[in-house]
Amino acid sequence: MAAQTVATGTPTADGAAKSVDLGPATALSCRECGHRVPLGPVFACEECFGPLEIAYDYSAYDTEELRKRIEAGPANIWRYAPLLPVPADVATKPNLNPGWTHLVKADNLARELGVTGGLYVKDDSGNPTHSFKDRVVAQALEAARAFGFTTLSCSSTGNLAGAVGAAAARAGFRSCVFIPHDLEQGKVVMAAVYGGELVGIEGNYDDVNRFCSELIGDPAGEGWGFVNVNLRPYYAEGSKTLAYEICEQLGWRLPDQLVVPIASGSQLTKIDKGLQELIRLGLVEDKPYKIFGAQAEGCSPVSVAYKAGHDVVRPQKPDTIAKSLAIGNPADGPYVLDIARRTGGAVEDVTDEQIVDAIKLLARTEGIFAETAGGVTVGVTKKLIENGLLDPALTTVVLNTGDGLKTLDAVAGTGLTATIRPNLDSFRDAGLA
Amino acid sequence: MAAQTVATGTPTADGAAKSVDLGPATALSCRECGHRVPLGPVFACEECFGPLEIAYDYSAYDTEELRKRIEAGPANIWRYAPLLPVPADVATKPNLNPGWTHLVKADNLARELGVTGGLYVKDDSGNPTHSFKDRVVAQALEAARAFGFTTLSCSSTGNLAGAVGAAAARAGFRSCVFIPHDLEQGKVVMAAVYGGELVGIEGNYDDVNRFCSELIGDPAGEGWGFVNVNLRPYYAEGSKTLAYEICEQLGWRLPDQLVVPIASGSQLTKIDKGLQELIRLGLVEDKPYKIFGAQAEGCSPVSVAYKAGHDVVRPQKPDTIAKSLAIGNPADGPYVLDIARRTGGAVEDVTDEQIVDAIKLLARTEGIFAETAGGVTVGVTKKLIENGLLDPALTTVVLNTGDGLKTLDAVAGTGLTATIRPNLDSFRDAGLA
Repeated sequence: MAAQTVATGTPTADGAAKSVDLGPATALSCRECGHRVPLGPVFACEECFGPLEIAYDYSAYDTEELRKRIEAGPANIWRYAPLLPVPADVATKPNLNPGWTHLVKADNLARELGVTGGLYVKDDSGNPTHSFKDRVVAQALEAARAFGFTTLSCSSTGNLAGAVGAAAARAGFRSCVFIPHDLEQGKVVMAAVYGGELVGIEGNYDDVNRFCSELIGDPAGEGWGFVNVNLRPYYAEGSKTLAYEICEQLGWRLPDQLVVPIASGSQLTKIDKGLQELIRLGLVEDKPYKIFGAQAEGCSPVSVAYKAGHDVVRPQKPDTIAKSLAIGNPADGPYVLDIARRTGGAVEDVTDEQIVDAIKLLARTEGIFAETAGGVTVGVTKKLIENGLLDPALTTVVLNTGDGLKTLDAVAGTGLTATIRPNLDSFRDAGLA
Repeated sequence: MAAQTVATGTPTADGAAKSVDLGPATALSCRECGHRVPLGPVFACEECFGPLEIAYDYSAYDTEELRKRIEAGPANIWRYAPLLPVPADVATKPNLNPGWTHLVKADNLARELGVTGGLYVKDDSGNPTHSFKDRVVAQALEAARAFGFTTLSCSSTGNLAGAVGAAAARAGFRSCVFIPHDLEQGKVVMAAVYGGELVGIEGNYDDVNRFCSELIGDPAGEGWGFVNVNLRPYYAEGSKTLAYEICEQLGWRLPDQLVVPIASGSQLTKIDKGLQELIRLGLVEDKPYKIFGAQAEGCSPVSVAYKAGHDVVRPQKPDTIAKSLAIGNPADGPYVLDIARRTGGAVEDVTDEQIVDAIKLLARTEGIFAETAGGVTVGVTKKLIENGLLDPALTTVVLNTGDGLKTLDAVAGTGLTATIRPNLDSFRDAGLA
């Protein structure tokens, strides 16, 4: 079957009407009130200010033809092009082509945690810039291309800066990334090496975000695609590919339980959306699954709300080593609460000490060196088993969304197990023989 | 076609005879004198002290059946199991499963360098511990399993330590890695996090290596597989998979030119071996190809010998930022010289400054953040074009064997392009609009 191409008259960055080919995407639809608008670089509903999501037309797909087409596709997220807001020929365009990362059968970790139903780690550290952000940025980039933007931008304090800089470089976009001016030197280097503009803002992360919103509304921001602001509806869809890959890698089967980190909550929300799509398309058999959300205690607004039985999330001031999850006022928090409750999951949090222990546990059992966010999901999995909320007899997938090389400080205490002189006597004395 | 399994009576670590299934591998053969011995944990010829290599029996393979079997295989090096010293069911055993990394069509870099015949970067930073070492360690691990070893070991100052620690953790081996006791803290952390023994030796890297050789000959080293010493013949074969992947990813076609980094020279030698195998098996059409070797000026023994027209390599004391290539007395140096001359390639070197420039060039054109070794190959490619030795009208593949996150110091000078206050006036004043 040929890809569906939907040409929609939509305002471009320069205000001119132009036909936009974003494959099966047909419109933007408000998550709150359902109001629809044409595909374009907008993110909030003009009626109720709710978040806009991509609406698709998948009606023409035959399940088995679609499955074959996906399986014959490239070993990256573009194998799922028929389900994403991208043109059918997306794989031929310059992009970082992330995805199709390892789903590791974690038998050693399963033994340590007492999981008998099959434990898997979806390891997104294998992406081009070593975090799941490559998935969402790749989507935003294709939207930016479709809307005629020439600059790719974002506010960031870490993974996103590198993902945007790298993707823009490959695709021939100018990039301009805004960060707090006093970020650690290592993080600055990781973002600066791709050669785009890297602008330090005299202020904190909130000041950076406020400035970016101001820039989008100003003529100076014309032609600028902010991946997580005016391109957010497209960007967010990238997280669906985690759900697609997990199910395909399990042999087109839903897992019973998933443990997903929560920053803004968007990733968890879109993983649920992806699973629902696979069920509706007949690509997996419908059956119950539970989604668990994972936070650091030092930034646990969703976990606190979950435990208190609240529907709204009360903002916190983050203080945790899990910086990539440190969003004190998560936009999708209420949706996360809804999904955790609807699926029979839960939201839990762990201390910084438990995060470090979990990073080491995953490394010594599976040889996966995770970012602090991976320590959060593994640590929460352990805690959920201990408190009886996660069933160890069921198939469970835990997400690792980033790479330990980016948060080396978290395990800085790790070191030599022995120091010896270069001879066998010294070796024996150290008890190593 | 079923995989060939060759059972060979061979001494195991504990001295008992045991049948070893290493797929199509039939024996060890001396590269110098051709003397053959059974498969076992030995690396030097008992007749002439030459290096032992794996000999295979590929005679039963039908070309098109083999091609189909490879293409239907997993998205990692085990798709080539029929051509490697591993059992046919290797993909079901716990290992890091590296490989099938991106072959990036580097059109932006090609434009900057004036390459018109197609330029590709084989980006091995996508491997599980982010260097090509995962390929060779995965092979050594399977040999260690076949020989009944229980401890995986190596001497290392960087990438290899992490690759061994991670692979051993996944596969349930004990690991014991030896490093100089005064290594930088960051490198110690990257190796220590996997939880194996990490032993600091009071001495320099030469002392570490001398001690490891002593340990192999001692009863205390019984059951120990040193990936790059007594398992070296198996380990080295992992580099063939780079050649296989490049050709398959080009549509089963030989590239015209390859630029390969030189440390011990083993990788370049085995890439040539892999290309020759594909030709003999009929998987690619036979045609001339040129292999170019790349070194840092601060450790350029092979390049110096090449330019002087020598057949032997005179050792150097390394002094370069490209630490993963800093082997002053490269064991396979003479073979590299032979291959460069036989194929019509060359060996060239670049300064540390040129290495840093090349890292930045690759990052800003293709969004690939390379380790210093990647700066060496890209820098050498540029130099070879300038001095007329590499033909820009031919298809060229440049290897990036590691990740920039591991050698951040090399680009520490990179930083903010501007610092502004969080308002539009400040933004405009900085000339960013």
